[in-house]
Amino acid sequence: MKCILNVSFCLGLLLTSAVIAADEYPSYSLASSDAYDFSRIEAYTGKHEGVYAHIDKNLEGHFKNLQRWVSQPSISAQNIGITEMAELLRDDLAAIGFSETTLVPTSGHPGVWGYYDAGAEKTLLVYMMYDVQPVNEDDWESPPFEGKLVDRDFGRVMMARGATNQKGPERAFLNALDSIIKVNGTLPVNLMLLAEGEEELGSPHYPELVDVYEQRLKTADGVLFPFNSQNLNGELTVLLGVKGILYWELESKGGAWGGPGRSEIHGSYKAVVDSPAQRLISAIASMTSADGNTILIEGYYDDVKPPTVEESMLINTMGKDWSGEDWKKGLSLSKFIHGLEGQAALMRYLYDVTLNVDGIWSGYTGEGVKTILPHIATAKMDSRLPLGVDPDTQLARIRKHLDDSGFSDITIRKLSGYPAAQTSVGAPLVLAAMGVFSKWASIDNVMPRIGGSAPFYQFTERLGLPLVFNGLGHGTGAHGPNEYMLIYPAKGSSIAGLADIEKSYVDLLFALAKPAQD
Amino acid sequence: MKCILNVSFCLGLLLTSAVIAADEYPSYSLASSDAYDFSRIEAYTGKHEGVYAHIDKNLEGHFKNLQRWVSQPSISAQNIGITEMAELLRDDLAAIGFSETTLVPTSGHPGVWGYYDAGAEKTLLVYMMYDVQPVNEDDWESPPFEGKLVDRDFGRVMMARGATNQKGPERAFLNALDSIIKVNGTLPVNLMLLAEGEEELGSPHYPELVDVYEQRLKTADGVLFPFNSQNLNGELTVLLGVKGILYWELESKGGAWGGPGRSEIHGSYKAVVDSPAQRLISAIASMTSADGNTILIEGYYDDVKPPTVEESMLINTMGKDWSGEDWKKGLSLSKFIHGLEGQAALMRYLYDVTLNVDGIWSGYTGEGVKTILPHIATAKMDSRLPLGVDPDTQLARIRKHLDDSGFSDITIRKLSGYPAAQTSVGAPLVLAAMGVFSKWASIDNVMPRIGGSAPFYQFTERLGLPLVFNGLGHGTGAHGPNEYMLIYPAKGSSIAGLADIEKSYVDLLFALAKPAQD
Repeated sequence: MKCILNVSFCLGLLLTSAVIAADEYPSYSLASSDAYDFSRIEAYTGKHEGVYAHIDKNLEGHFKNLQRWVSQPSISAQNIGITEMAELLRDDLAAIGFSETTLVPTSGHPGVWGYYDAGAEKTLLVYMMYDVQPVNEDDWESPPFEGKLVDRDFGRVMMARGATNQKGPERAFLNALDSIIKVNGTLPVNLMLLAEGEEELGSPHYPELVDVYEQRLKTADGVLFPFNSQNLNGELTVLLGVKGILYWELESKGGAWGGPGRSEIHGSYKAVVDSPAQRLISAIASMTSADGNTILIEGYYDDVKPPTVEESMLINTMGKDWSGEDWKKGLSLSKFIHGLEGQAALMRYLYDVTLNVDGIWSGYTGEGVKTILPHIATAKMDSRLPLGVDPDTQLARIRKHLDDSGFSDITIRKLSGYPAAQTSVGAPLVLAAMGVFSKWASIDNVMPRIGGSAPFYQFTERLGLPLVFNGLGHGTGAHGPNEYMLIYPAKGSSIAGLADIEKSYVDLLFALAKPAQD
Repeated sequence: MKCILNVSFCLGLLLTSAVIAADEYPSYSLASSDAYDFSRIEAYTGKHEGVYAHIDKNLEGHFKNLQRWVSQPSISAQNIGITEMAELLRDDLAAIGFSETTLVPTSGHPGVWGYYDAGAEKTLLVYMMYDVQPVNEDDWESPPFEGKLVDRDFGRVMMARGATNQKGPERAFLNALDSIIKVNGTLPVNLMLLAEGEEELGSPHYPELVDVYEQRLKTADGVLFPFNSQNLNGELTVLLGVKGILYWELESKGGAWGGPGRSEIHGSYKAVVDSPAQRLISAIASMTSADGNTILIEGYYDDVKPPTVEESMLINTMGKDWSGEDWKKGLSLSKFIHGLEGQAALMRYLYDVTLNVDGIWSGYTGEGVKTILPHIATAKMDSRLPLGVDPDTQLARIRKHLDDSGFSDITIRKLSGYPAAQTSVGAPLVLAAMGVFSKWASIDNVMPRIGGSAPFYQFTERLGLPLVFNGLGHGTGAHGPNEYMLIYPAKGSSIAGLADIEKSYVDLLFALAKPAQD
C-alpha cells in the first residue's frame, strides 16, 4: 500500500495484517488553491525618531531593567520569589505611569493588573507571565539569576532563567512604553495589562483573572504577548494560533475485574492472575491503529474544523517550498509518519488530533531479572486539539471507548485541558504587527497555527480578541540551561537587538493606533 | 459467553468485540480419572536412636554452625564475601570427613565440590547454593548477618539473611552428616556435593560446574536440595518440578522505521512523528488477546506436554478439594483469570505457558504535566515454560511474531532462559523422602510442579536424576527483611525444629540406602 503524497490525508497505513485494522484517517481538502502573498504586506513606514533616540540614549538603563527582572527568581513550581516578582512588576507599571496597578489574588499565585489611560481610541491588552521554570544551577555556564552578558558568534546575549521566556521581551516592551511616555507625554493607545505567575504550571488560574476584568477586557482591540521570534538568520515566522490540549493519566490496577491487590506478586502466577500492566497496554493499543497514528476512538476526529479559505491560502504559500527537512534534522527523524513529505506532512501537523503517550511505567524497571506481576500500571497521555475540538468532549469519548472496550475499571485522571486558539491574518492588530515585522526583519512564513498548546483561548474564544504572540528579537533555552536573549547583535547580524526590539514595539503601538498610516 | 469450569481449558474469554479476537486457548484433558492416594505412603519406620541422641546432645553446637554460616555475608549480586563463604563451605566439608573438597572456578563466582566415599551402593548428589540476596539493614528488626534468636508465637527463630534461603537447611543437613559419621563412623550412602555461589543471579554458570563432574554426577541415584518446606501448621506440600523460564527485554526506539532519534522532543510533534512508546505498546498488545491471557504468537503453546497418567492422578487428588481460596487471599485477588475456580484454575496454573510483563517504562514518569514524545521505550517480560517447551524455540517464535507483525526494528534482549524440570513421584528418592516426611510431618499435597522456575533441568534433564527439593522445617522472608528459620518450636507446635530437621535428614540417607526397610 502506497500513500499518495498530497494535501488529502493518506489512509492510516497498516503495519501488518496481523494487528488491528485502522479506520480511514480523515481527509481534509484545502478550500482554495490561491496563495496568500505576505511578501506584499507593506512595511510600516512610521518614523518615531524622538522616541528611537530616547531608547538609544537610555539603552544601558533599559538593559539594566531586564537584568533587574531576571535577577529576581520567580519559580512558580517551587513557589520561590513569586510575590516579590509580582510586586516588582506592579511597581514598574506604576513607575511608568499606569494609573491602575494592583496584585489580583487567585486560588494560586497572584496576578498583576495594570491600566494606562491614554484617552486614546484604541486599547491594547498585554498578556504577561512573570514566572519562570526551575533551574539546575550546575548546568549553567553563567549564574541563572544574574543576567550577565555572554559573548556568542552572533553578539552579546543576556544569559539567565527568564531571559527569553519571558522577562526579556516583556521588560523590553515596558522600556518602549517608558520611552514613548517620556518623549510624547502619553501613549498612542490605552493599555490593559493582565499578568499571571503560573504560566509554567499550565495557567490553571488565568481564567479567574479574566473573570475579574472580563467586561473591560472585551473592549480591547487585541492582545499582545511580547515574544522573541527571530531565528539566527533574523527571519520570523508569524504564528496565528495554537492547538488546545487534553492531558490525562490512565491507571490500571488489580480490583473487582481481576488482577492482584497487592504489590509485587510472583510472576509465575500470571498463569491464573490477570495483569494490570497488560490490561493498560491493551487499552492504550485499542485506542489507535497498530502504528499508533490513526485514532480509533469513536468520534475523535469529528469536530476538527476543515481548512478555511484563509488557512488554505496560508498553507498554499507556506507549503509550496516547505520540505520539513529542518524539522527532521532538529528532531533526529529519518522520516515523518507514513513517509509523508512536504505539504502533506505540514497539513497533518496543522490538522491532526493527536494521541500521544508522554510516559508509561509499571513494575520492575531496574537492571537485570526480577520476575513480578505488577499490581498497578500508569500512563501519561495527551491529545493536541485543533480548532473545533473540545477537550471535555474528547475526554468523554475516551471514557466511552474504554467502557465499550471492556476497560471500565481503568481510571482516567484529567490533568489539563483547554481548547485551541487562532487569530485571523486579517485582524487589524495582526496586519499592524506584520507591517512592523516587515520593516525590521524578514517574515519567512505565516502559519495558521502551531502544533503546540497555550491557553490563548481565553483571549481569542472567550474575549473574542485577536492575539499576536510574535515579535522581533532572538533567544532560546526556555526550559533548559543557558537560556539567553540577544541584547547586542554582532556587526552585520540580521537579528534585532534590544534597541530595535523596543523600537519595533513603539512602531506597533502607533501602527495599531493609526492602521496603515504614519 | 460462559466458561465451562472443568479440567478442559476454557476459551480465552474476549473482553469485548471491539478488540483483538483471541485464538482458542489450548485444551488439555487429564489422562486418568484415578487419584493418587499419598495418604497410603508408609511412614519411614527406621530408628537411628544413637544418631538422634548425638544430635540432641550437640544441638547448641549445631545451631552455632548455622549462626556461623549466616554471619558470613555472601551477596552474589554485590560480590560481598563470596570467596570467604566458598572457602568456609569447603573447609566444613573437609572437617566433616569429605575426601574431596575443592573450589571450582567458573566464569563467575566459584563453585564448591565435595565427595564423601562411604563405599556404599547408593550415591546422593546434594545441590547447594552458598550465596544470598542483598539486604537493606534498616528494614531488619535484628542485624541480618548475626543470626540472633528472636521469639515468635510458634517458637524461637534464627533471624538472618540466608536463614532459610538456604544456609539454614543446608548446614542442618551437614550437621546430620556429622552426627551420623561421629556415631557410625561413616555414611549409609556416598555423597557428592556441588554448590554454586550464583543462585540468586539465576545460576548462569552452574552448567559449567556440571561440565566438570558430569560423568561422575550421572552415576548418582538422585539429587537433594535441602529445604524448609513446612507451613505454620506443620504441613508440607511435596513439589516434584518447576517450570522453565524465558526472560527478555523489548526495546523500541527511533530509527530507520521512524520516530525521534533524540530524547524528549515536544509532544505536539506526534502529528507527524511516530512514537516508539506506542510502537512497543502495540507490539506487546499484539502478542496476546486483549485480556492479556491468551498468547497469539504462532506455535507458542505447541510443545506443552499434555498431562501424563501420573500427573493426572496427582491432580485428581490435589484438585478435588483445592479451592484456591488461600492463594486468592495471599495474592489479594478478587478472582482468577476468566473466573476459573478450583481444579480448572489449578490446571491452568500447572500447564499454562505464560506471557507476563514484569516491567515497562518510557518517557516522563514524574508528577504532573510534561508533554514529550519519548524516543525510547523498554519492557521486561517473562514466559514460564511447562515441560516440553524450549526457551530458545519460544524466543525465535517471539522474534518471528514481531517480524511478521511489522516490528522487526524492536530489539529483543534475552536475559535468562532454561527449560522445566520434573521428577516422577515413583522415583526411589522421592518415595524415600515422602516416607520420611510422613514420619515427621503431615503431607498435605503432592504437586507435579509449581509455576515458578529454577534451573533444576541440569539435574533432571541433563543428568537424568530424580530431584527432591523439599524437607522438614519452616522459614520465610527469603528475599525480604527479617528472613528467619524456626530453630526451637514452641510447645505443641507441629513444625520440625532444628533437631527434628536433622533427624529427618538422617532418616532420608538411611531410607535411600535401604528403600522401604529399616
